[in-house]
Amino acid sequence: MTNPVPTPSVPAPDIVRCAYMEIVVTDLARSRAFYVDVLGLHVTEEDDEAIYLRSLEEFIHHNLVLRKGPVAAVAAFAYRVKSPAEVDAAEAYYRELGCRTERRADGFTKGVGDSVRVEDPLGFPYEFFYDVEHVERLTQRYDLYSAGELVRLDHFNQVTPDVPRGRAYLEDLGFRVSEDIQDSDGVTYAVWMHRKQTVHDTALTGGNGPRMHHVAFATHEKHNIIQICDKMGALRISDRIERGPGRHGVSNAFYLYILDPDDHRIEIYCQDYYTGDPDNPTITWDVHDNQRRDWWGNAVVPSWYSEASLVLDLDGNPQPVTERDERSEMAVTVGADGFSYTRKDGAEAEGFKLGAQL
Amino acid sequence: MTNPVPTPSVPAPDIVRCAYMEIVVTDLARSRAFYVDVLGLHVTEEDDEAIYLRSLEEFIHHNLVLRKGPVAAVAAFAYRVKSPAEVDAAEAYYRELGCRTERRADGFTKGVGDSVRVEDPLGFPYEFFYDVEHVERLTQRYDLYSAGELVRLDHFNQVTPDVPRGRAYLEDLGFRVSEDIQDSDGVTYAVWMHRKQTVHDTALTGGNGPRMHHVAFATHEKHNIIQICDKMGALRISDRIERGPGRHGVSNAFYLYILDPDDHRIEIYCQDYYTGDPDNPTITWDVHDNQRRDWWGNAVVPSWYSEASLVLDLDGNPQPVTERDERSEMAVTVGADGFSYTRKDGAEAEGFKLGAQL
Amino acid sequence: MTNPVPTPSVPAPDIVRCAYMEIVVTDLARSRAFYVDVLGLHVTEEDDEAIYLRSLEEFIHHNLVLRKGPVAAVAAFAYRVKSPAEVDAAEAYYRELGCRTERRADGFTKGVGDSVRVEDPLGFPYEFFYDVEHVERLTQRYDLYSAGELVRLDHFNQVTPDVPRGRAYLEDLGFRVSEDIQDSDGVTYAVWMHRKQTVHDTALTGGNGPRMHHVAFATHEKHNIIQICDKMGALRISDRIERGPGRHGVSNAFYLYILDPDDHRIEIYCQDYYTGDPDNPTITWDVHDNQRRDWWGNAVVPSWYSEASLVLDLDGNPQPVTERDERSEMAVTVGADGFSYTRKDGAEAEGFKLGAQL
Amino acid sequence: MTNPVPTPSVPAPDIVRCAYMEIVVTDLARSRAFYVDVLGLHVTEEDDEAIYLRSLEEFIHHNLVLRKGPVAAVAAFAYRVKSPAEVDAAEAYYRELGCRTERRADGFTKGVGDSVRVEDPLGFPYEFFYDVEHVERLTQRYDLYSAGELVRLDHFNQVTPDVPRGRAYLEDLGFRVSEDIQDSDGVTYAVWMHRKQTVHDTALTGGNGPRMHHVAFATHEKHNIIQICDKMGALRISDRIERGPGRHGVSNAFYLYILDPDDHRIEIYCQDYYTGDPDNPTITWDVHDNQRRDWWGNAVVPSWYSEASLVLDLDGNPQPVTERDERSEMAVTVGADGFSYTRKDGAEAEGFKLGAQL
Repeated sequence: MTNPVPTPSVPAPDIVRCAYMEIVVTDLARSRAFYVDVLGLHVTEEDDEAIYLRSLEEFIHHNLVLRKGPVAAVAAFAYRVKSPAEVDAAEAYYRELGCRTERRADGFTKGVGDSVRVEDPLGFPYEFFYDVEHVERLTQRYDLYSAGELVRLDHFNQVTPDVPRGRAYLEDLGFRVSEDIQDSDGVTYAVWMHRKQTVHDTALTGGNGPRMHHVAFATHEKHNIIQICDKMGALRISDRIERGPGRHGVSNAFYLYILDPDDHRIEIYCQDYYTGDPDNPTITWDVHDNQRRDWWGNAVVPSWYSEASLVLDLDGNPQPVTERDERSEMAVTVGADGFSYTRKDGAEAEGFKLGAQL
Repeated sequence: MTNPVPTPSVPAPDIVRCAYMEIVVTDLARSRAFYVDVLGLHVTEEDDEAIYLRSLEEFIHHNLVLRKGPVAAVAAFAYRVKSPAEVDAAEAYYRELGCRTERRADGFTKGVGDSVRVEDPLGFPYEFFYDVEHVERLTQRYDLYSAGELVRLDHFNQVTPDVPRGRAYLEDLGFRVSEDIQDSDGVTYAVWMHRKQTVHDTALTGGNGPRMHHVAFATHEKHNIIQICDKMGALRISDRIERGPGRHGVSNAFYLYILDPDDHRIEIYCQDYYTGDPDNPTITWDVHDNQRRDWWGNAVVPSWYSEASLVLDLDGNPQPVTERDERSEMAVTVGADGFSYTRKDGAEAEGFKLGAQL
Repeated sequence: MTNPVPTPSVPAPDIVRCAYMEIVVTDLARSRAFYVDVLGLHVTEEDDEAIYLRSLEEFIHHNLVLRKGPVAAVAAFAYRVKSPAEVDAAEAYYRELGCRTERRADGFTKGVGDSVRVEDPLGFPYEFFYDVEHVERLTQRYDLYSAGELVRLDHFNQVTPDVPRGRAYLEDLGFRVSEDIQDSDGVTYAVWMHRKQTVHDTALTGGNGPRMHHVAFATHEKHNIIQICDKMGALRISDRIERGPGRHGVSNAFYLYILDPDDHRIEIYCQDYYTGDPDNPTITWDVHDNQRRDWWGNAVVPSWYSEASLVLDLDGNPQPVTERDERSEMAVTVGADGFSYTRKDGAEAEGFKLGAQL
Repeated sequence: MTNPVPTPSVPAPDIVRCAYMEIVVTDLARSRAFYVDVLGLHVTEEDDEAIYLRSLEEFIHHNLVLRKGPVAAVAAFAYRVKSPAEVDAAEAYYRELGCRTERRADGFTKGVGDSVRVEDPLGFPYEFFYDVEHVERLTQRYDLYSAGELVRLDHFNQVTPDVPRGRAYLEDLGFRVSEDIQDSDGVTYAVWMHRKQTVHDTALTGGNGPRMHHVAFATHEKHNIIQICDKMGALRISDRIERGPGRHGVSNAFYLYILDPDDHRIEIYCQDYYTGDPDNPTITWDVHDNQRRDWWGNAVVPSWYSEASLVLDLDGNPQPVTERDERSEMAVTVGADGFSYTRKDGAEAEGFKLGAQL
């Protein structure tokens, strides 16, 4: 790790969970068709500039804000903190880090009150808030329950060039590591970090960044995810299914990656595991384990490694993207030069599933 | 179609359904580990030469016979007919076709009585029988019900070079077409044909043949299929998952293809639809429809098109394989030369999902 | 059995399957809200007098007709036959039986052509037709797929006083018995009979009749049925859930019984088994087996035994109801006088679950 | 509330979650058959006196201890605390409350280190520990995954006469209320309280106590719970299914209650919701809402209200049971005297589902 982020002298804000993402979309109606008509997120409120969406079991105002803008990008990764005072703590924390911060007593979006946004040391626009409007929690509104219903916001995923640097910074901020991917030389390719008692509230994926890799919503069961695929097939937008469905090695969740009309990547996810004990075991995966990204050994498509969304600074301009110096996971695992194992000590010829597909 | 199979003057045997497949495996213990320990098929009977397996809801002696032999191949595609007299009808039918037939009053396998085996006009070893030992139907033996339980034999799939020729032959034999894949020049790539009231008892896949493409077992629900993937991951044999899981365009079934230790291909399948009405609509798919083989547009792996099992003649020798003359589905749909659509009339750039994966 | 129905000299019509039921409802809008808004059946056509509904995977015009009328009742149990000529066969068959018949070249409902309706020997209004309008089969319209989607009409269930008499009549008509419930004195309480390759197209339930016990629609998976319960809970009509969900002993299907606004009983059903072989084993259940009606031993509610819908004659007047002479299943199994077993040979005190609930 | 439990001056121990229950069983082999062979819990360790069991996704030594003894009862409700120091905190806390405590550096069970057990103010044997042996977490051992797999310990449920008194005591101990059941006179019938981010780690059910109402394990999906019912049917122990399966009103979880060979009640449970936010909304249910205990309005069986397991003091003797003074939920809701609503403001005759069942 070069140039580590210093540890502030003041306490980190006490973060509860990832709470919402604000994304800029270039055509609000087209995005509404995707998030509301296809995915079935529930509209809390909308106007000509923005749509506020929430998942079925959410009781705060929104989990996703779609805001109209000229360039598709992410405007904020917003975390809820434990009390109003923790917003002050967040502001002080980032000021000491020398980051640009902006505090708004009335919030940056509808439904949210006193908040601070920062350009964090990795270049991401992070928001911290406590005050938020409570809305109807639709948990038992089974009259509204679609076959592919999204019930919770689960996590963010961020692309950053130097994963160990980002990890140390997020550990200082109170996140704990549940799983990571490394190689035998000690290169870290990705790391999963949580505040709430799931595998992650956010993950860092090694690559050119800062960029947003994906935002993930949870379903109750696996068939709900399959229905989303089936529906996208029926709507003849199956080319917007990028990867999956499958079972993750990391996190053990059942997953699907799809692309919104601006190519923002959405994950649909279910059934990871409880991580709330203080000594929850951390799992390290070998980057050459073919089952780390898909437990069934299905290949990761190259676009999943290379494509991601821009993120904005506090003026709304895209942050410049820095290239990753270290080895890329795609280079070491995909295609002729990458060789990975399914069975580590197989006496038989190793099952190189990727090769079998080319 | 060249050299059509003549229509016999005698009535075709009244076939009820596909009933069992007899396959030759090179290592009986290794195959037992796969079919019994991994897939959970139930052993009706076994000895040093053969293992007789059935699915949970079966009441006849077996759906699959594993027989030890020097060369992995298929010894019989066995159909049950409506009465003992229909075995006579089958024998007469194939004799008139000039096919080699062999009748055995005591059957070719344990548990089955009077049967006839034939080398059919397409080169496949077909068997017809009525008399069979009834065994315990395990339908409500939920104490034996595994998480990936296989409940029925669903269908066979055969590779043959000239699909229209095979289709006409099977229509004469009483099969009805539920779905097929064609192109705008009238080339037929595959056809699905049934006797029982499902999408197929057997399908013909265009390619070098005669070969056996796969044999399929049904589960109750989709999660049962996912469990089979998860278990193969846990056993570190995920490289034996060849394709899927996915949703078929053709048949609408949820599917998975896996390979046994001899590379015999097994499909796990659920939730196709009722076809029992005499005017059940036949569905023709365009070979350039990216969703025909996978409703989500996921690519078919090349091995799925090219690999298949040899079939045996009545002496137990592999039948010679004839090349397909017509266009291959793989050539017209996979890679740089194949172009296929997801949205037929998309004003936007077409979603060529395959390209996105290379 | 007293007064057996004679076997006609002419052949029985070749029935394919149960195809639709026509029911009279007293408030069309209220019934539409139930069948369309709650259950999600698809409207093929509707006017001020009637609504024509079909399930997702149906390709004929309708599976259910709701017709406005003064008295809630059933106007027809309609079966599809194998060809137009079989409608003639049906007419001749019932004429020989001395039943009243009515033939209409243009059908009795929209979408159906040449048909015959009869007042059958048990007093039920049966219809036979072949000619029917094909409509869009919605199988892959996953954009329309609700979380509790009904995909097929599965079966009818009729209440009749003398079950053996009805069984012999239906066997003559070509139905085959899959399962029945008897006691050790030879009293038959119910019988399940099929033409298509499932457990039943219709069943006879012993009781005061002729009455319609229920009509059943199938879902793909068990969670679809659970969703229907959840939705009825959300709509605060849980008191219209009469029995279940549960697992049937008979048929092995997962089931639910609900009541429409006129108290017509609807079953939601999934995952019975294949019965297409000519020697499909018939299962006889002991009426004292607590698991026959619910595999988990949950009690049958009394209303399920006693309530049923009237059926109409061909003039549209309710058929008079005749009382059952033989023992009633409710009397021999429910409450203090009924004693039933869970474990037949239990050395331990028998598990009388019903008692535990009172 | 009479005789409130005082609030200690020292801080409450920081509890992470409910971690395991120790129950006394009268026949170890018979209980093993139930918990291991029927329910599929995984044996960490066993000897002639005790069996240590864990759920699939657990990484600590056990979630359930079966200990042989003369009287079926509960020996401990054990909570994990956040650090070793919190065990000291627990000891100090209960000493100040004047409760009997016992500290053991080597733990009370195998696999657990330094622990304190207390006879708490409600008469329950509570244990607090941090130090515990880590064992293989079987999360991805899908080769061991049964069709009804239990994946986590979810919660305890305790019967106590004075619910408000117990609630205040547990709130002092750091538990937060997610839901409760009250009537319009302010009587509280039950309360659900959590430390981890689910609906509860324990619940208080109003009744004669101290007694243990049930201990609950979670599955991944609803079909896993259905399989447990199906398997108990196959094993002819359906009379050990006490209540359900169903959908809870409170907690929204899908549930099942079964009885072990000593009549200890086990709940199988899945899919409640996230409660981790500090202002998670508390839901109060009206005791006269028929959907509070079962969202589908299915009746609660009387035994579920009246039966529960004894709990032991630190000498291993059963605690005396005190009767509840206030109204019982059963009395106000079951049978002729209890009248409860499904639709609160229904203009139509109210749907009294219970009545319909008697």
